[in-house]
Amino acid sequence: MKTYPSDDGNAAFVSLERGEDLLEGLNEAVEKLGIEAGTLQIIGGLEEAVVGYFDPESAEYVTTRTGHVEICAGLGNVSLKDGKPFIHLHLTVSGKEAAAVGGHAMDGCRAYVVEAYLRKLGGPAPVRQEVEGMSLKVWPGS
Amino acid sequence: MKTYPSDDGNAAFVSLERGEDLLEGLNEAVEKLGIEAGTLQIIGGLEEAVVGYFDPESAEYVTTRTGHVEICAGLGNVSLKDGKPFIHLHLTVSGKEAAAVGGHAMDGCRAYVVEAYLRKLGGPAPVRQEVEGMSLKVWPGS
Amino acid sequence: MKTYPSDDGNAAFVSLERGEDLLEGLNEAVEKLGIEAGTLQIIGGLEEAVVGYFDPESAEYVTTRTGHVEICAGLGNVSLKDGKPFIHLHLTVSGKEAAAVGGHAMDGCRAYVVEAYLRKLGGPAPVRQEVEGMSLKVWPGS
Repeated sequence: MKTYPSDDGNAAFVSLERGEDLLEGLNEAVEKLGIEAGTLQIIGGLEEAVVGYFDPESAEYVTTRTGHVEICAGLGNVSLKDGKPFIHLHLTVSGKEAAAVGGHAMDGCRAYVVEAYLRKLGGPAPVRQEVEGMSLKVWPGS
Repeated sequence: MKTYPSDDGNAAFVSLERGEDLLEGLNEAVEKLGIEAGTLQIIGGLEEAVVGYFDPESAEYVTTRTGHVEICAGLGNVSLKDGKPFIHLHLTVSGKEAAAVGGHAMDGCRAYVVEAYLRKLGGPAPVRQEVEGMSLKVWPGS
Repeated sequence: MKTYPSDDGNAAFVSLERGEDLLEGLNEAVEKLGIEAGTLQIIGGLEEAVVGYFDPESAEYVTTRTGHVEICAGLGNVSLKDGKPFIHLHLTVSGKEAAAVGGHAMDGCRAYVVEAYLRKLGGPAPVRQEVEGMSLKVWPGS
């Protein structure tokens, strides 16, 4: 993991090395850059990806695992969960046939080439909380 | 709808509550934050989504409706149309099988969890206009 | 190609005219705006798209060509390659049936409506280099 920060410290590019764990590498970058609230964009490729669909009936993630893929788009955010910075990342990926699959980035995504962009919100971080009717910790919507 | 603004007022996170209409909630946020020109990113989930393909032959949107989906990626912008701030949003979404579908966000998308990021351009807003050869109001390209 | 810059010169919207080459138009904008390091977001539509999957075995791109499509999401960055600003862009696109395909934006993508957002990093640009075990020029990850 290597960071390429802006001069004002409000943004950075991040590069992960081949074989690095995606979420571990990004968490390391978030810690190094001191981000509690921010937005995240990613492109590149993954040696393998695991994306999840949160089933609202079972309240569990249904996961799909891929082989080597392009990261068509990775969008995410950093906010506070249980008192610590937490990355919420969604991925769209595609293989040789170009058909796209996507969902919530689960543990087990491994970098081939990862080029990320992080930008601080520059204000108080949203705090993930349990809210009525949801089994995920979310940013209160009212 | 709840906004989490930056200290300088140039950006904000936005959270929608379960069941809120996606475009209505985002428009409310744009109004509250006073955005005439800006960029928009979204992740989360929708109870239902309606995405459109603009058919250049018929000059109409062909729509696809989904059930509960993850928002793999939502990218959009705010600019002026008919004198008012207007959100142009495109979505990529996926269900339990992870296969992604996408297009122009139409009316009828309903939030499950919506985590949006808005950033002001900080300059004059592009103005959507009719241009020759296009049946959509677009930002003039020359 | 038309740019809609922010007052501080750190960001801009960019609009391409129908028929313009996507990467040529964006490169023109990057040059006009003087961007060596930055992030890029795109939505809109393309008259045709060519997306690539980088096959790590053959070290070549396998390409997929489409007809008229929506740009569900375009994410990219600008950094230095061979001493010049270089756009690295990934696309997710979908046609009338809404099924999404994606990958690396190759030469040959032609604009229908292109609404892009560019933001400068505001710091030293990452430099694309050959690194061991990779046949692409990438940002060193350590």
